[in-house]
Amino acid sequence: MHPLLNKKGFVIDIDGVIGRGESPIKKGIEGVKKLRELGKKVIFVSNNSTRSRRIMMGRFQRFGLDVDEDELLMATYATARFIAKEKRSAKVFTTGEPGLVEELELAGHKIVEYDEAEYLVVGSNRGINFDLMTKALRACLSGIRYLATNPDRIFPAEDGPVPGTGMIIGALYWMTGRKPDVVVGKPSKIIMEEALEILGLSAEDVVVVGDQIDVDIKAGKAIGAETLLVLTGVTTRENINSMISRFGEKPDYVLDSLSDLFD
Amino acid sequence: MHPLLNKKGFVIDIDGVIGRGESPIKKGIEGVKKLRELGKKVIFVSNNSTRSRRIMMGRFQRFGLDVDEDELLMATYATARFIAKEKRSAKVFTTGEPGLVEELELAGHKIVEYDEAEYLVVGSNRGINFDLMTKALRACLSGIRYLATNPDRIFPAEDGPVPGTGMIIGALYWMTGRKPDVVVGKPSKIIMEEALEILGLSAEDVVVVGDQIDVDIKAGKAIGAETLLVLTGVTTRENINSMISRFGEKPDYVLDSLSDLFD
Repeated sequence: MHPLLNKKGFVIDIDGVIGRGESPIKKGIEGVKKLRELGKKVIFVSNNSTRSRRIMMGRFQRFGLDVDEDELLMATYATARFIAKEKRSAKVFTTGEPGLVEELELAGHKIVEYDEAEYLVVGSNRGINFDLMTKALRACLSGIRYLATNPDRIFPAEDGPVPGTGMIIGALYWMTGRKPDVVVGKPSKIIMEEALEILGLSAEDVVVVGDQIDVDIKAGKAIGAETLLVLTGVTTRENINSMISRFGEKPDYVLDSLSDLFD
Repeated sequence: MHPLLNKKGFVIDIDGVIGRGESPIKKGIEGVKKLRELGKKVIFVSNNSTRSRRIMMGRFQRFGLDVDEDELLMATYATARFIAKEKRSAKVFTTGEPGLVEELELAGHKIVEYDEAEYLVVGSNRGINFDLMTKALRACLSGIRYLATNPDRIFPAEDGPVPGTGMIIGALYWMTGRKPDVVVGKPSKIIMEEALEILGLSAEDVVVVGDQIDVDIKAGKAIGAETLLVLTGVTTRENINSMISRFGEKPDYVLDSLSDLFD
């Protein structure tokens, strides 16, 4: 039996482990089903900054995997939770998409204009425009608390690279000299600590699973958890050594896929 | 007589010297008219990256000042000229507005899609969107020659700060690690060298006039010309000393306005 099967909880990345966009990764989904048969606790943690849990549940259903809402922790929801711990019903201006707005509102926050806001929340938006960037710039200059859902600079879409949340972070930094006060998504430990809190487990009881050394493995290390790299995403047998030396982090375990835990 | 009136040519900034947006600065316009009476050569040099000379001529007419096309050198036209010296009929992908496209096409260049381009030209665009940023990102990643019309990070619009061309430069830098190969606008000496070329004068024969120490005065110093700071724009009697120490440049002359050359 694989030694990681002694862990009580599995903190699992979505993209590159369970699916690629709308396409399921069979061996990832199989792995999750087997973990559940063993009674393991599972939480899916993703830097996705445009989708609410409700939207993401639809994707999991299309993958043939039923998940509860409390098994999903996207950067959208994690950001809304994080703010709620600092301030109940915070006034928030966000650059984000409806999925982020949905999670902020569900957490009790109020979406307001930039000049009334207590928080600037930067998340990616495929509807970004000059007006929205102007408002974000002014919010940033006003000095209010500034959070980013996730730090990803480029997202590898099916037809090529597209800007991630980092596009807005970089633009604001260049214009104002300000970086986010808090970045919630991986490799930040903020989203990982929220995952532990939701699972009700401590870091030594979980394994963090992902396909990216600089994102998932680094986040796992940040909370002191053991880490499992799977090769169903951006890291491959060919590039793994260069990835390890480039990012200076080494996963505790490497497997071809999540279901290989059971081989 | 003011010693600068011995110069043959005047390289004059527009915003903060001649006008503020659509509002004329009377003492600036008076000054230009008197320079012309003395037979001085004049060229207006601006970092404006959204307007063609044709568009800007309309503004000067509304200011009550007739200008020839060859007295106008905006960053739009300067960029088009600069590329033409490197390559005739270059294939250009640009983030810019119709004013920039107009100047690129007048200079003989061809506007193409990002994946056919030889040049990426970044200029501000009030119609910026996710699709345009995606294309700029991909052009940038492809390694093609990358020019920016001007480096301005924030533009002080009438209702508050708005993003300048620097917003796109910063976003691309954050995402790709690339900065422009060439920045054309002030304080770059590229646009100033084009001004000298159009005037047919050398640096010692001109004075560079502007309201911003970090932009106009720095650009004048970059070509070794004498510089005149006027206090009709962002620099004032109150902030001039802090501006000088902040930017590490001192103008050769300071006057309340351009027409004070004649007092």
